[in-house]
Amino acid sequence: MLIIDQLIQKIEEKHCPVVVGLDPVIGKIPDFIKQEAKNKYGNTVQAAAESLFQFNRLLIERLHPVIPAVKLQMACYEMYGKWGLDTFQRTLENAKSHDLMVIDDSKRSDIGSTARLYALGHLGSVPLITGTSTKPKADFMTINPFLGTDSINPFIEECHHSNKGLFTLVRTSNPSAPEYQEALTGGQPLYKKIAGDIQKIAEQNRGNRGYSPFGAVIGATWPEEIEQLRTIMSEVFFLVPGYGVQGATADQLASAFDQQGLGAIVNSSRGIIYAHAWSKFQEKYPDQKQFADASYDAVVEMRDDLLRSLRQAGKLPDSW
Amino acid sequence: MLIIDQLIQKIEEKHCPVVVGLDPVIGKIPDFIKQEAKNKYGNTVQAAAESLFQFNRLLIERLHPVIPAVKLQMACYEMYGKWGLDTFQRTLENAKSHDLMVIDDSKRSDIGSTARLYALGHLGSVPLITGTSTKPKADFMTINPFLGTDSINPFIEECHHSNKGLFTLVRTSNPSAPEYQEALTGGQPLYKKIAGDIQKIAEQNRGNRGYSPFGAVIGATWPEEIEQLRTIMSEVFFLVPGYGVQGATADQLASAFDQQGLGAIVNSSRGIIYAHAWSKFQEKYPDQKQFADASYDAVVEMRDDLLRSLRQAGKLPDSW
Repeated sequence: MLIIDQLIQKIEEKHCPVVVGLDPVIGKIPDFIKQEAKNKYGNTVQAAAESLFQFNRLLIERLHPVIPAVKLQMACYEMYGKWGLDTFQRTLENAKSHDLMVIDDSKRSDIGSTARLYALGHLGSVPLITGTSTKPKADFMTINPFLGTDSINPFIEECHHSNKGLFTLVRTSNPSAPEYQEALTGGQPLYKKIAGDIQKIAEQNRGNRGYSPFGAVIGATWPEEIEQLRTIMSEVFFLVPGYGVQGATADQLASAFDQQGLGAIVNSSRGIIYAHAWSKFQEKYPDQKQFADASYDAVVEMRDDLLRSLRQAGKLPDSW
Repeated sequence: MLIIDQLIQKIEEKHCPVVVGLDPVIGKIPDFIKQEAKNKYGNTVQAAAESLFQFNRLLIERLHPVIPAVKLQMACYEMYGKWGLDTFQRTLENAKSHDLMVIDDSKRSDIGSTARLYALGHLGSVPLITGTSTKPKADFMTINPFLGTDSINPFIEECHHSNKGLFTLVRTSNPSAPEYQEALTGGQPLYKKIAGDIQKIAEQNRGNRGYSPFGAVIGATWPEEIEQLRTIMSEVFFLVPGYGVQGATADQLASAFDQQGLGAIVNSSRGIIYAHAWSKFQEKYPDQKQFADASYDAVVEMRDDLLRSLRQAGKLPDSW
């Protein structure tokens, strides 16, 4: 089954178009986790990376029954060098062992010959002295399209080869996004040109449910544009960051979805993984060790908020 | 001394505006290196990464007297996960111990809060459970500007804090570069808009020699544009890929330089590090173990070619 159909299946099984961003930063990890890592490895890079892993592990353990996927922000891991990549890989394998899909959010970009190495490293098999190594890899990765289609093609080829998927940045959620993404080409803003290029690729690569493994990142802080982009990209699955902490509401996101409640997966990172720091959850879960319970409540709340707005928009199947 | 002045000093000391790209791929590494790594670690990811390190180490040992800097293409390393990042770090430290400047070519990009993590990881100090870790980092890194200036600013802040520098992608060397980089904004192509933005940053941050630590990547396969970009970006140091294998000649590059022979550093990767595979060098250096001698000859040839074209253009100081 194409990877996008696997993702859709999990979203439908769990009635949950939410992906949780595992973007841990050491300053926000509960002390009991850090203390244990410090006892084991001292105040080292390895201990910091181990804290990130244990934090992720406990979140995955608690959240996996209700979510289809996790998204790992690579910046959080690679800052710790080899130990950070070790934590990235262990988290990825842990998530997969809990039957979660994994999105590798690394936003890579380079010219073709180098893009191919990124594609192999993040999605495929890497060459050894003889033969190849086949460690588990993420199901999807994010890429940056600035260099043009010949920089995107090697990722697409590797996805065909390994049954993986992409989310290409089309419209990002940060305030400066319009500066360059709204430059005009062929009478339309650049992000719509890129949207059209992704749609062309998607049309040629549809899965059983009509969507392609070649998706797009569409920042939710530009809700007025989501509807337009949905029209341009009818076969493209959206990864939508920006819910919650970054400011978008569920009602603003309904246009990303189709009449079956499909077509998009909405990410929240800080709003979920650090929910134990919110006052309302601190009262309910006063013990630090209950941090993942607060995250569970937060993800259920987010899911219900999204489903409510989809229901209002007449986009939720009766069976959900 | 500002990092850009350190780079200029090394270029002047060695009369060599060349940076060698250490972009090793396992299939092109001499067998004697791979055999030794395999004997030590078996046919593992660790052995592949160790081969990359030894290849780099021997190149650095042979080339460091004549070059000012090396550029490490991150894709080649991170494909090998934790062992790859270990090789990246060891190569970086080895290059620094040979008094070379290091450019971390990772083309990172993300929204501000995440860009800050990339900046810390690649250029700064990373937070531990208590305090920070201060491993040696690269002197410069490359970044992708697609997300806009608020995604660039965290890198600039870290550069101010740690005395580091950036090369922001302005114009890449691949055939598809025009697709998105020539979208129009304010009546000019996007890459010129980005060039203007980098110039504004550079004007406020000049070193002793008139250049800023906030440089630009300018693909050499678009020689007609280099002159225009030099006019827009008078205080911006250029990192120029595309010489040799990618097709640009020294004469096409002269316009990247100012009247003192400064203002740019030209990268070659495959053309130098795999010189032992060229027929002319195979005759001179038949033994695989002489591979770095072939690279030495290739880098001297490239340097002389660049200096010749700068001399012809009247841009070479008499003292060189």
